[in-house]
Order: sequence, then C-alpha cells, then structure tokens
Amino acid sequence: MRLRASHLHACLADPVLDTMNFLNEVTMRFPRAISFAPGRPLERHFDSRRVLGEMLASVTATSEELDKRMQYGPAKGIICEAIAKMLRVDEKIEAAAEDIVITVGCQEAMFLAALSLRDAERQNVLLVAEPSYVGIVGASKMCDMPIEPVACGPDGLSLQSLRETIASVAASGKRVAAVYVCPDFSNPDGTTMPLASRRELLALAHTNDFLILEDNAYGMFAFDGERLPTLKSQDEHGHVVYLGTFSKLIFPGIRVGFMVAGQRVEHGSKTTSLADELGKLKSMITVNTPPASQLAVLAILEQNQYSLENLERAAIASYRNNRDGLLDALARHLPDAAALGISWNRPAGGFFLTVHVPFEVTDDLLRHSASAHEVIWVPMQYFYLRSGGERQIRLAFSYVDHDRIDEGIARFGTFLRETITAQSSTAPSDKENLK
Amino acid sequence: MRLRASHLHACLADPVLDTMNFLNEVTMRFPRAISFAPGRPLERHFDSRRVLGEMLASVTATSEELDKRMQYGPAKGIICEAIAKMLRVDEKIEAAAEDIVITVGCQEAMFLAALSLRDAERQNVLLVAEPSYVGIVGASKMCDMPIEPVACGPDGLSLQSLRETIASVAASGKRVAAVYVCPDFSNPDGTTMPLASRRELLALAHTNDFLILEDNAYGMFAFDGERLPTLKSQDEHGHVVYLGTFSKLIFPGIRVGFMVAGQRVEHGSKTTSLADELGKLKSMITVNTPPASQLAVLAILEQNQYSLENLERAAIASYRNNRDGLLDALARHLPDAAALGISWNRPAGGFFLTVHVPFEVTDDLLRHSASAHEVIWVPMQYFYLRSGGERQIRLAFSYVDHDRIDEGIARFGTFLRETITAQSSTAPSDKENLK
Repeated sequence: MRLRASHLHACLADPVLDTMNFLNEVTMRFPRAISFAPGRPLERHFDSRRVLGEMLASVTATSEELDKRMQYGPAKGIICEAIAKMLRVDEKIEAAAEDIVITVGCQEAMFLAALSLRDAERQNVLLVAEPSYVGIVGASKMCDMPIEPVACGPDGLSLQSLRETIASVAASGKRVAAVYVCPDFSNPDGTTMPLASRRELLALAHTNDFLILEDNAYGMFAFDGERLPTLKSQDEHGHVVYLGTFSKLIFPGIRVGFMVAGQRVEHGSKTTSLADELGKLKSMITVNTPPASQLAVLAILEQNQYSLENLERAAIASYRNNRDGLLDALARHLPDAAALGISWNRPAGGFFLTVHVPFEVTDDLLRHSASAHEVIWVPMQYFYLRSGGERQIRLAFSYVDHDRIDEGIARFGTFLRETITAQSSTAPSDKENLK
Repeated sequence: MRLRASHLHACLADPVLDTMNFLNEVTMRFPRAISFAPGRPLERHFDSRRVLGEMLASVTATSEELDKRMQYGPAKGIICEAIAKMLRVDEKIEAAAEDIVITVGCQEAMFLAALSLRDAERQNVLLVAEPSYVGIVGASKMCDMPIEPVACGPDGLSLQSLRETIASVAASGKRVAAVYVCPDFSNPDGTTMPLASRRELLALAHTNDFLILEDNAYGMFAFDGERLPTLKSQDEHGHVVYLGTFSKLIFPGIRVGFMVAGQRVEHGSKTTSLADELGKLKSMITVNTPPASQLAVLAILEQNQYSLENLERAAIASYRNNRDGLLDALARHLPDAAALGISWNRPAGGFFLTVHVPFEVTDDLLRHSASAHEVIWVPMQYFYLRSGGERQIRLAFSYVDHDRIDEGIARFGTFLRETITAQSSTAPSDKENLK
C-alpha cells in the first residue's frame, strides 16, 4: 500500500523535522571534516558502565524488590523525591515531590508542555525566544500549538520584543499562555540573561498572567564564576514550569528529564495540579519513564548527597577548555575579524557560540564548507521560525576534539575569507542596482 | 499562578484519561480485596536483575563502546536488525530492519500511529475495534485524531459492522485511514479473530485502501495449541502496521515496543517510508528509546537465537493455569449461571475474560463490590467510546494470585447474586411500566 504525504500529519512537511537529518547527512558524507555541528556532551565523561552498574548495585534489597520496580508504575515517576532534594541543594529551588514529573528526556517534557497548553479553540499562543531550540518548535508544530517568536539579543531574550509580542497577541484576540526561554547558555546562541532581565520577565509573567517554560539544560556548565539564579528559584508567584535533564551531565541515553509544574488547575470548584494533568498526558504517550533509568539517576544522586556539583567539575573543565580553545583559535585565525565584518560572542557556559558574518549563510555554503574545507557548522537560520539569523553561524564546542579546534577554525577562517572575497567580487552589480 | 482547565487541552477533561486513576484509587482504598482488575504480567517471571545485568555483560567490547551507545542515537533505534530476525523466527513476518521503529513501549507506537495519520483537514478517521484498549483511544484524543468504533462479537472484530462503518465514513465525506485491532486474545475482551475473518479484513483493507494497526501484545500467550497467523504475516499488499511489545514477556519497565511500517509514502515524485516519517515524529517526542533498554532486549534475543518461545513457556504455563483456575471457579461458584442470565467466554490466550451479566454495571456497583465483598473487577463500558458494554465485566486473570482465584470468584459470585436479587426486587415497577 502507498500513502500520500498529504494524507499524513502536516508537520511532517515542516523543515524543522528535517534539520537534523540534513546535518547528519552532511556529517556522514564528509567523515574527515572537523565538525562544530553536534551539540553533544563528551563521551569521555559518561562512565556509563559504572552508572548502569550502580543502578543494579543500589537496589540493595532482594531481586523481588527490583522486579516490583520493573512493573507498570506511576506516570509521574518514582524518583521525584530525590529530584526535589537535588533541586533544593543545587538550584535553591523549593519543589514538592508531587509537583515533579519525570520524563523520557527533556524533549518529552517540552512535548507535554506544548500539548497541555494547546486548547481547543487555539486561543493559547506559546512565545519562543528566537533563535530557538528545534525541540520546542517541533513539539509545538506536532501538537498544533500556535507559536510566535520573541527576538533575542546579546543578553538573550529581548524584553522589548517580548512586550511588543504580548501586545500583538492580545491585539489578535489570542492569549499568551507561556514563554519558552533558556536563560543560561542558550542553545543555539550561547547567551545568558542578566539578573535584571530575569526579574523583569518574572514581573511581566505576573502582570500578564502567563507561564514561563524555563529550559535549564546547560545551567550546570558555568565557566566563569558564580551562576545566576534560575527563574524558578526567584518564582514568587508560581509562573515558572522548570525543565531539567540528565542528558548532558550523565549521558543522553539515560533518557531522563523532568519538569516542575506545581501550578494549580481549576476545574470549576475542584483543583488539580498541572503536574497531575501532565502525568495523565504522559500515561498515553510513554506510560512511564523506564524505571531502570530512573533508578540509575537515583543511585548517582544518593551517592552524591543530592548534589551534582562534584560530578559537574570534570565536565565543566573540559567544556571550558574547549570554549577557551575556540575563542583563542578564532582570535588567532581571524585577527582582522572586525575589518572583515565578522564577530562572535563569548559564552559564559554551555556548549554553543554564535559567529556573525557579512554574508548570507546557505545550505549550499555549508555543503561547500564540508567538501572543500572539511569543516562543518550550523546555519543559525535553522533556529528561526520564519526568517532571521541569515548572517549567523552556530559553532558547538562541546563535542569537537580539543586538539582539532585550532585546525578546524583555521579551515573555518579560510572558508569565511573565501566566501567574503567571492561575494565582494560579485557585489558590484548588486551595488549598481542599488544606485 | 492558577490555570483554568478550559485553557488546557480538551482531552484532559475526557474520562478515558481518568479510568486508570479511578481503578488505582479503588485498588488502593481496598487493599484486602482480591483484584481481577490489573492486566499486568506476573513479576515472578521478570528476572529483571538478570535481564539488566545481561545488558551490561553483553556489551563485550570496551567501556568506550558502551559510552558510545549512550550518546544520542537514531530515532528509529539500534536493535531493528535483531527485531527483524525475531519476527522472522517467531512470527513468520518478513520485515526489513529499516522499516522498524523502536518505541518507548507499545504505547508510544500507538501515539505515533495516531499522530501520523491526523491530517490537517481531519479527513482521516481511525476505526477502533470496540471494546478497545484505552491506550489507542487516549492517544487518538490527544492528537485530535477522529475515531469511530467498530463492534466486536465473540470472534472479535465484526466484519459486518466494519463494512457498515466504512460505508458511513464514506457517506460523511471522510476517509478510513486505518483500523486498529488486536486479533489475538484482545484486551479487554479476550477474543480471537478466526482465520477467515483475518483474511476478510485484509481483503477489505485492500479494496478500501486503508491501513490495519495490528496490536499483537498478547499473541505469544496462546494456551490451546497452535497460534493463528498474525495479520502481518498474511499481509500481501502491505496494509498492516504491526505493533509489538516486550512489556508482557520481559517486563513493563523495559519500556521497549516497536512498530513495523514499511509502507511507502509519496511526496510528489519522492518517496519515503512510513517508518522514516514515524521516526521524525518520535525524534520530537522522546528523541530515541533508551539504549540501555534496547541493549537488554538485544542481549535476551541473542541468547535465545532470536526466538522468545523458550522464554514464553514458563509464562504461558502460569497464565494458562490462571485461566483454567478462573474458568473452574466460575463453573463451581455459578453452576446456575444460565438461569441467572450470566455467561462468560473461554479465552484461548492472553490475560482477559468477559463476563456478561443481566444488570447494568456501574462505578457504584464496583465500589460496593470492593468494599462489601472485597473483590475488584473492571466495568467493560470503560472500553467503549460512547455507549456499550453496560452489562459486561472484564476479569483479568494474569496478575491475580492463583491460590486466591477460587476465593475471589466465590466473592464475585455472591456479589452477582446479591445484585441480581436486589434488582429483581425493584424490577416489578419497571415491568408494570412496560405493560
């Protein structure tokens, strides 16, 4: 039997679902290229045999005890208590265990958030800080959740753009249900929201009565001194739904994320919690998060007195070292960057950095860079809903071999120079057209 | 912040998402009751410490090899080859590895199937054999997939009802996209589709150009001789999307299911496979199925030469023993069943049996049965979309202690007699009204 694509879900035709395929394809086709594309954690820090082994060792009771854990279990998870302790110790977040939902990676948390907020009349709108993580955009499109972008600047989310978007959504007769934001070392642009904007965002949420979906996938990887407080830790009025993950620190294959959603939901006179509602949705998607994965996380938390800071230290050193190597290499190979119209930011943590270039970055240029220069990166426009980011490139420094960063950036520099030269030699006709 | 339920996804108000909560609540409130409610596999057959240990033991290469597997991986999974071999050996199903998608339990497979078929204009309709597994109904409601019931009889799906429903969907200007059916030892009614109906269903799919979602969660638990061939093994024209799970045989916490979806999808001149499209959707829900769970399944498959029949033997013996115990107890405690207007089926496998009673089965009666008689069961109407099943009860025999079946059915018999007596004493007025 043959099916017509037009008879399937419309989101399947959306380029956001193909972005990753295209990147994988480029990476596979040019295996010798040095890649600044994947925003992955370093395998050297995984220690997966030990982590998975601890899971078995830690269930100290009988084998029958372990068998019981492997039965169908509560949709919200079995390690909520331990996650609440960790949040208290590491993030100064006070969360009740019953307000936590354990998810199959943070991606399921995003999907559940988008799905729960997709009301029947499509009055709710989800605002997403742009450039945005493809996971929140893809999830929203899959559940027909209307989304609108909010611009970001060098300090992350622009409050000015947020105010304008709130006004335009209100003017269209719709309702801002939530704002998705990654305040710490954002994927893809590597920005950090300053404390003052965090406070202003919380105040705006309170005035306008919307939720904030705070994605804190990278906050633990702070390179330069003290971390700023998370939105959730400052969330006096309960506007923040906090999204966390163990993918970056333990390993992605653990597939354990979580969300804190203690908001009350009113059904006439009865009230429930948003966490309970999310649990109901989850029970029809994945039933529950694999208990073996949950128990492995539990074992790691228990061994570390519910603080992951010790575990983070070695990983932070690696990622900081890579960031520094990347910044050094950029300065070394592009000493005339300003004259060329090239600039980049200095991320204070996380996995990503943004390079601004004086030309439009296309898929063709990426292919050319991979084949002729053997260096791979990501066009920033992949992370924009409609247009934007055309003159930006995302460089991920988390997964590239430290020893190859210098060579990779040497190639990247050559590619940039070549492209600028090629475009300026074709530019006169454009300039003439502008006269 | 407080949210209004009316501002959340409409499916959250649907009773189907609360069914399981209600059952859990009744079970928790009456812990001394003997429960025929949960359709769970027996923990005694799990051997979870060994299964999870094998996973670690089997990755014989270096720890680095295991770390690599714990990185982000392909959405469709890493054990598709092994599943294809198992399907060939155990089910006589020929499936290419690239047509298989590994899911977080069979529930994710159902969700992906429903989501993929939810076209923008809502022209597609999913027909579900009724009484239906709540997982397919819940998933459909969550993705706004229109569903229509098809009646079942003692031999499972009624082809007559199917033909009528196809005609009525066509008359309404919509399109039957797929029929969901569980041909072997269906949850909830324990029926089996005879070979002739299977062939007729395949022929109808071919004539009317629809998919069949074949849920084979219970087919491995056949009690009485040879199994009938699955729909997929007879699927000449590629209409069947096959859904499988390891939850019942290995253990639910493994959270590994899979789907076979080799159908071609036409996008203008380009074609893809339905499996690839489902993988794209999955990448935005759970990214990939936890590799540790996949590797545990792989280890079990490799150890057993890709056939689970040996593993099934002990489990089948237990479940058959429970079925026989249940049938004996029903006959012993309800020798006058026919006179009372009570009957039940004899399931040839699986976990469930249907009891027909001469009164309407309500939540209040369930509460009364749990509190006054200390026996719990499930009203069959939970498994109907609109109405139906009011005079039926589901008894699950998989999870109840064999030694308590007789006592449980003694209590159940008392409950039935009491209810029939109570209703006949109030009946005269009803009868008078009918004069």
